[in-house]
Amino acid sequence: MGLFTKDIRTFDDLFLHQLKDILYAEKRIVGALPKMIAKAADAELRAGLEQHFDQTKNHVKRLEQVFRLHGAAPASVECPAIDGIIEEANEVVGEVADAAVLDAALINAAQAAEHYEIARYGSLISWARQLGRSDVAGLLQKTLDEEKVTDRKLTTLAEGRVNLRAAS
Amino acid sequence: MGLFTKDIRTFDDLFLHQLKDILYAEKRIVGALPKMIAKAADAELRAGLEQHFDQTKNHVKRLEQVFRLHGAAPASVECPAIDGIIEEANEVVGEVADAAVLDAALINAAQAAEHYEIARYGSLISWARQLGRSDVAGLLQKTLDEEKVTDRKLTTLAEGRVNLRAAS
Repeated sequence: MGLFTKDIRTFDDLFLHQLKDILYAEKRIVGALPKMIAKAADAELRAGLEQHFDQTKNHVKRLEQVFRLHGAAPASVECPAIDGIIEEANEVVGEVADAAVLDAALINAAQAAEHYEIARYGSLISWARQLGRSDVAGLLQKTLDEEKVTDRKLTTLAEGRVNLRAAS
Repeated sequence: MGLFTKDIRTFDDLFLHQLKDILYAEKRIVGALPKMIAKAADAELRAGLEQHFDQTKNHVKRLEQVFRLHGAAPASVECPAIDGIIEEANEVVGEVADAAVLDAALINAAQAAEHYEIARYGSLISWARQLGRSDVAGLLQKTLDEEKVTDRKLTTLAEGRVNLRAAS
């Protein structure tokens, strides 16, 4: 990124910049999930996070495919947003003493990351369509659908059992 | 927060911690929105962000009311997640040369903040209900509903006009 120049000139530049941003974010989530899985007490939460870990590694591969379809080499740019979300997750999770309360905090942290991705993929899909790249939009949509399913599963788990245990 | 102690012991501690987190986030968004409004070229986007600026100031007041209902003094804790989201918004927006592309970037940035809030308020509402505080949950729900409406309006604006202009 140029300190004294404006490097995003076209809509395509913006699209490519945000692709690099979300590739960085997905890779950081791949790095963060094993620590979260290790801390989860609830078996279903642990299994859900493990499944999402596998999905996230696949999201990285899918993004690399999107770069190639778009005629660009896969690359990432630093994404202060996901850095902040993960930093905050580590801070809060590190402050929690009780295992049941920790599970509620882990779900909350995971959902913040999910919603970051839902926002970014939502824009990327709209932008890809506008750029006439329905092939790219279709691939990104698969990932967005998986992020939304994960988010809903986490809500169901929280409201079905985890919050009750945390409060008791 | 203690460096060597775990300060979140109960579910109520976690709830209160996240209330402080979202109060900090809402206040940072109040601080960030005027700069975004000043950069928006599209009149409807500017008007939408102005309306959301007023709503956000009201969300701060509503949160202060939630603290009091919960028997705690309004307070905030630093929230690296929203700091990162705003830092990234400033970085990307600062890189964009073209006014129409800038509008698309502004919508993308605003939706990242909206989704952060949607994730946090969603958990806080579930937690308040579990803690038997339907009064608090009801107030937080009002804010969540407004954040979701704002997010949808931004999508409609992007897909209806802003992306088309950005791509042309």
